[in-house]
Amino acid sequence: MTLAPDERLDELGRKGYRIIQNTKTFCFGIDAVLLADFAAVPAKASVLDLGTGSGILPLLLAARDKGDRFTALEIQPQQVELAIRNMRLNGLENKVSIVEGDIRTASDRLPRGSFDAVVTNPPYLKQGRGLINPQEAKAIARHEILCTLEDVLREASRLLKPGGSLFMVHRCWRLAETLALLPVCRLSAKRLRLVHSFPETEGELFLLEARRSAGEGLIVDPPCVIYEAPGRYTKEVYRMYYGDSPEETGDKIE
Amino acid sequence: MTLAPDERLDELGRKGYRIIQNTKTFCFGIDAVLLADFAAVPAKASVLDLGTGSGILPLLLAARDKGDRFTALEIQPQQVELAIRNMRLNGLENKVSIVEGDIRTASDRLPRGSFDAVVTNPPYLKQGRGLINPQEAKAIARHEILCTLEDVLREASRLLKPGGSLFMVHRCWRLAETLALLPVCRLSAKRLRLVHSFPETEGELFLLEARRSAGEGLIVDPPCVIYEAPGRYTKEVYRMYYGDSPEETGDKIE
Repeated sequence: MTLAPDERLDELGRKGYRIIQNTKTFCFGIDAVLLADFAAVPAKASVLDLGTGSGILPLLLAARDKGDRFTALEIQPQQVELAIRNMRLNGLENKVSIVEGDIRTASDRLPRGSFDAVVTNPPYLKQGRGLINPQEAKAIARHEILCTLEDVLREASRLLKPGGSLFMVHRCWRLAETLALLPVCRLSAKRLRLVHSFPETEGELFLLEARRSAGEGLIVDPPCVIYEAPGRYTKEVYRMYYGDSPEETGDKIE
Repeated sequence: MTLAPDERLDELGRKGYRIIQNTKTFCFGIDAVLLADFAAVPAKASVLDLGTGSGILPLLLAARDKGDRFTALEIQPQQVELAIRNMRLNGLENKVSIVEGDIRTASDRLPRGSFDAVVTNPPYLKQGRGLINPQEAKAIARHEILCTLEDVLREASRLLKPGGSLFMVHRCWRLAETLALLPVCRLSAKRLRLVHSFPETEGELFLLEARRSAGEGLIVDPPCVIYEAPGRYTKEVYRMYYGDSPEETGDKIE
């Protein structure tokens, strides 16, 4: 295996899985790790990832035995190519189908009502908010240039089986808007977890499970706290990254 | 001052304020204390309480110098009479107007667009959910017998000045529904705090600030944790109850 310029190889901490990422486009962050942990995807599920980038979510889910077959949609050709290489690198090319396509019209090309679960780590920023990254690929991953939050929720709902669940991560700043869009898209919020850097700081990210054809009633999980001291993960987050680590056998984390 | 049968007198821990409560109808709980702490009501504000019961929220807010003039609406005549006695008991009869009336038609009898802030601790349970308390007054305070969540939000919005804030407490179970109703009622969620008994337990209550005529964008406060050990409040909650307590001078809480 050879890396192109600007590419780097990272270990994923489970099953020996590795990922190639392009440092000029987008490298995965803690949001993907939190979402893979939060998503209660059954082992036998067929899973759709809307906007897979380098394929990080199928890799993290497969590493946790969450999901059996994956379809991973991505609009940017160079990211599609990278995701395909990543599946081959980990021997997952028969388990994960990387599909080049637009989230906005996903339900025109993929079978409606056919997925047990949808996962998504959509662009966080509205167009016109925040600095637009001059590297186009990064901008597309971060800003709603090619799809809005409503596009993602609407297409997820159309593609889910009745009773199937969408698992998403997004910024707290947009939580109210997200929860208001759900009924419009025939989804019901079922479980919410807020993510704080420290116990005494504001919420930054939220993790949400929304179900198609479900009743009202939301469970709020305990808060997720990232750091127990500056630069040191809490035990819970450390385990999300390095599940079968020395921590599991009682060694001290430093 | 004499107490009727079934009445009891409680200290409110600030300014020497006290409250008479009828143990057969409804006694205030931690939700009122949390809401009085959360509500960022300016000292000069005109404040409306939708469903005041015994008048606990005006008392807790006035004790914190939050708000200048209060209008407190209550539908149950015996609670109106009790709230009036409670304002006299604390010398607040010129500051707090207790008004007998129905939340559902509040904007027909009170001036629309006239309040800087609205506070409410509405009934938590939908009709048909949970056991209906055989004591009618308790049932009305706990169940949506006389008003729904949508009634409360709609009337609050009509009665607020543009830019004015609604502060409410409710069960997490109904958070998604509440946030979905806000835009329908021309309110925008601005600040949210989730309340957990312990750091590792599910959320039970939420505190929400919603503003009339405001843009999108939500701030999530640090989680509020009630107990640091079974039966022992965290420092933060202890201060909410007993602001100028020994705790403030460094004594140990037991």
